[in-house]
Amino acid sequence: MLLRMATLFLRTLREDPADAEVASHRLLLRAGYIRRAAPGGFTMLPLGKLVLDRVTEVVRSELAEVGAQEVQFPALLPREPYETSGRWVEYGDGIFTLADRRGAEFLLAPTHEEMFALLVRDLFSSYRDYPVLLYQVQTKFRDEARPRAGLLRGREFLMKDAYSFDLDDAGLAASYATMRAAYQRIFDRLGMSYTIVKAMSGLMGGSASEEFLATAPAGEDTYVGCAACAYAANTEAVVTPAVEATDPAARPAATTHDTPETPTIESLVALANARGLGGRTDWTAADTLKNVVVTVTPPGGKGAPLVIGVPGDREVDLKRLAAALEPATVAMFDDWAAHPFLVRGYIGPQVLAGLGIRYLVDPRVAVGTSWLTGANEAGRHAIDVTHGRDFVADGTIEAAEVRAGDPCPACGEGTLTMRRGIEIGHVFQLGRRFTDAFSVDALGADGKPVRPTMGSYGIGISRAVAAIAEQHHDERGLVWPAAVAPVDVHVVAAGKGDQIAGALALGERLHRMGLRVLVDDRANVSPGVKFTDAELIGVPVTVVVGRRFAEGYVELRDRATGERTDLSVEEVADAIATRTAISGVPSA
Amino acid sequence: MLLRMATLFLRTLREDPADAEVASHRLLLRAGYIRRAAPGGFTMLPLGKLVLDRVTEVVRSELAEVGAQEVQFPALLPREPYETSGRWVEYGDGIFTLADRRGAEFLLAPTHEEMFALLVRDLFSSYRDYPVLLYQVQTKFRDEARPRAGLLRGREFLMKDAYSFDLDDAGLAASYATMRAAYQRIFDRLGMSYTIVKAMSGLMGGSASEEFLATAPAGEDTYVGCAACAYAANTEAVVTPAVEATDPAARPAATTHDTPETPTIESLVALANARGLGGRTDWTAADTLKNVVVTVTPPGGKGAPLVIGVPGDREVDLKRLAAALEPATVAMFDDWAAHPFLVRGYIGPQVLAGLGIRYLVDPRVAVGTSWLTGANEAGRHAIDVTHGRDFVADGTIEAAEVRAGDPCPACGEGTLTMRRGIEIGHVFQLGRRFTDAFSVDALGADGKPVRPTMGSYGIGISRAVAAIAEQHHDERGLVWPAAVAPVDVHVVAAGKGDQIAGALALGERLHRMGLRVLVDDRANVSPGVKFTDAELIGVPVTVVVGRRFAEGYVELRDRATGERTDLSVEEVADAIATRTAISGVPSA
Repeated sequence: MLLRMATLFLRTLREDPADAEVASHRLLLRAGYIRRAAPGGFTMLPLGKLVLDRVTEVVRSELAEVGAQEVQFPALLPREPYETSGRWVEYGDGIFTLADRRGAEFLLAPTHEEMFALLVRDLFSSYRDYPVLLYQVQTKFRDEARPRAGLLRGREFLMKDAYSFDLDDAGLAASYATMRAAYQRIFDRLGMSYTIVKAMSGLMGGSASEEFLATAPAGEDTYVGCAACAYAANTEAVVTPAVEATDPAARPAATTHDTPETPTIESLVALANARGLGGRTDWTAADTLKNVVVTVTPPGGKGAPLVIGVPGDREVDLKRLAAALEPATVAMFDDWAAHPFLVRGYIGPQVLAGLGIRYLVDPRVAVGTSWLTGANEAGRHAIDVTHGRDFVADGTIEAAEVRAGDPCPACGEGTLTMRRGIEIGHVFQLGRRFTDAFSVDALGADGKPVRPTMGSYGIGISRAVAAIAEQHHDERGLVWPAAVAPVDVHVVAAGKGDQIAGALALGERLHRMGLRVLVDDRANVSPGVKFTDAELIGVPVTVVVGRRFAEGYVELRDRATGERTDLSVEEVADAIATRTAISGVPSA
Repeated sequence: MLLRMATLFLRTLREDPADAEVASHRLLLRAGYIRRAAPGGFTMLPLGKLVLDRVTEVVRSELAEVGAQEVQFPALLPREPYETSGRWVEYGDGIFTLADRRGAEFLLAPTHEEMFALLVRDLFSSYRDYPVLLYQVQTKFRDEARPRAGLLRGREFLMKDAYSFDLDDAGLAASYATMRAAYQRIFDRLGMSYTIVKAMSGLMGGSASEEFLATAPAGEDTYVGCAACAYAANTEAVVTPAVEATDPAARPAATTHDTPETPTIESLVALANARGLGGRTDWTAADTLKNVVVTVTPPGGKGAPLVIGVPGDREVDLKRLAAALEPATVAMFDDWAAHPFLVRGYIGPQVLAGLGIRYLVDPRVAVGTSWLTGANEAGRHAIDVTHGRDFVADGTIEAAEVRAGDPCPACGEGTLTMRRGIEIGHVFQLGRRFTDAFSVDALGADGKPVRPTMGSYGIGISRAVAAIAEQHHDERGLVWPAAVAPVDVHVVAAGKGDQIAGALALGERLHRMGLRVLVDDRANVSPGVKFTDAELIGVPVTVVVGRRFAEGYVELRDRATGERTDLSVEEVADAIATRTAISGVPSA
């Protein structure tokens, strides 16, 4: 491939676009890789399409290595299979749906578990057919409430989704391990820094679930890592270390006290210390039990109040709460009129069982722990309210915020730090949710039916392009890794006439060696603008055809290090060929 | 690439699927290339995806040769640009539209003229930027009323759409010629028989317009060809040779006659001859003027009656009529109650001008021609009703059926024959409809704005796969041209044990030579079933590893000719390499 800047469909921007906040969005726009075309929808310009294709090819080649077979499903699918699996309702507003001219309902499928399960049921019948690993690379659509950050969170994007089918859990674990390793090779080849974090499986159900997060300050996924061990997890997936239960009967009896004007934890702690409640003046927020009321609505069902009890020094994290309650949806409670016994600001768990209201507590609110909490009367609180004696929770829930400094749930020694990343991949052991939904069965060796178990594996390909840009840029522009750069070498004619002809001749020569080449042969553009553009575009190696070209010399510039070397025209071809052979996959 | 039948995600079908009527649909299903997933939506199985990718690569490589640059637009686009161009309304039921979670309206764009025009306006500003040729390969969606014939007419399909932008008509003509020639190379490389036919530009407006039709009895496009010259045209685009006007005053005066019970042409001609109307007994349908009333509705407007006058020996062709009236839509007239002066079965053009009803005639109804036609009273007709004296048409229209035997409008000597084909490509000179709609301007050399003119060029890639299958099959299965076959060679192990090991070793050797290889290494399948499958799948060359393999010999089978040759293992590798190098593009 030999591209010429004089005719390339590319215009770089001098200024940062007003609405582009993150670096990848800003630079991909400025360097002419992408252009906005719709809310959350971007056009890939020629250079952007080349990078997207290279990322796709890396994904394809590693999947081929592990025997995954490529298929391609329609994106527009009828409602029925998604109705059967329950996801039509679960997805809610998150997907695009439409009716055809006859009124039949369709969706633009965000993932295809249903269709792959149906296809395997259609083609396979015997245990001998298994295992199988299938994938597709497809444009996906999601009705994102807040599309943002360019390719990082769009409403239309390119995704690779893969599915494994095995006959038993050991097989699934093996397929999962195979795909997890393939993902590591893919992201390594793409030059990405990433962390594999434990994740919730969310709407999908299933067991083991991990996300590949590209390390990036601009990432919208928060995760935690342990400083002492390898533990890393999505905040939604962090499990609070259990607190051992103790004997509630050993605690002093609960007593109720007037605490006027204390609807907040802060005001309550201040008053408790001022009055020396229970003979103590060392009350902190951690001694209080905060009870938050929410409305929980199961899919297709009716909303009901739920009270969440957390230590008063922690907020309820709405993302963790939502993940813990999925597929039900959660909203702030506002039906106080219908529940006069829930006294706003003074709710305690003592009465909830009697009111028939479900109560879930943070794992720190263990049986035998005592708390300063509401007494269910305005201006009144109780102390020594003890779990297992004065109230019994209906269960625990991981809804309290995770904080830097919390103990690591894996090693118990280190403490957690908060990190940010971009989700670029997700692997999980889905189990039999979809094979059950569609009665996918294989005839076993013993003549009895066996129900296969599924794994599901996704990579956001267009998002990966942006994540690579997040990780590989500087103040002057993009700095692509060789494996995904739109071209291998950028030849810049610093002057006119002979230097343009020389740049084109050199470009042609490099092209014939099998390199991808971009030649800046623009006659009416100054060398300064060309160099600025080259740095913005971010090809790993630039060759400047300048004054010394008449003597047979050109300058090699390394975009990442800034290193500049004068080489003869003979040497430069070898130097680039060597570099590219080392770092990437040259191709015609 | 080395595929193994033992693990390939492929199951062939012994029986013809019940709902597959055309050969390509039947064979692509039976041979395991595609599977139905939705109404008009098909899943490409691994072999189907390989063929689709190979066709796509042929398209891409020829477009790269002519300097076309690849981009990729979103498919889901906001209503506004299509509203501006008028196509939101024009497309009507033919496209899928949807509303997002905020109620904003979107469409799944069937083509992208609007977006390309906007993008060029966004990036380009000077006359120096032009010309430019851009394309994308994209999954397209159309709400087909009657999806049919597998990949031939689906609701979701892969398409290449390209657009040229030039500063003047000569530039557009040159771009058009370039793309037309590229299309010829593409379809030649794909091994297709095709005809380039003159076409209507339809909703697009514009001037020159040609379709590439793959010759196929299963094609749903009817076109005509001349036996004496190279003329070929879509029936919609056939222009009736003009009949010269003569002096209406030279004709005998019109007279009105009782013609009871003659609401049809047949009954009228019979009665006219029985009664010797006007002293003649040689009346034929061609002497009568048939007046058909339709309701025409302009986009977003109100319906109004239109009368079409055609010689009584021809029907009105609804496709030609619809094409002639686009973008207005046409329906049969049914509001007789509101128009008491339109006497069903006895309508003549004499009164239409007085009634304010538009009247368009077939070009054969020239000024000076006289007709037997309705007298606008039940049971009455008139003779010698002459155009230019007794009535004046508001214009001519190409709505009468085209018939085999009609004179060729190009050479005037040959006669037309009717043929059938599959539309696989369309090139047309679009003009300035979209650059006008979006005020796309380039600053000219003289400082004045120049409005670019567009060309639009489409290839149905998934449809081309089916069209190739239509043209390349026999009663035993598919017979792929080498350039698009899913693999280059199909190695069949005729026996078990050694022969399977030998087939795999040979396959590995061919693979290392850069060939795409499929090895049938199934242990529990009979040689007969393997041979049947190989013929169904249709790879150009099969190598049978059978009994003589122990002596170092294998059998080479040519799928197209059926020829079988025994060759040594050494010879077979060379023979295949030679064949493939001659006929196609080998790749790793």
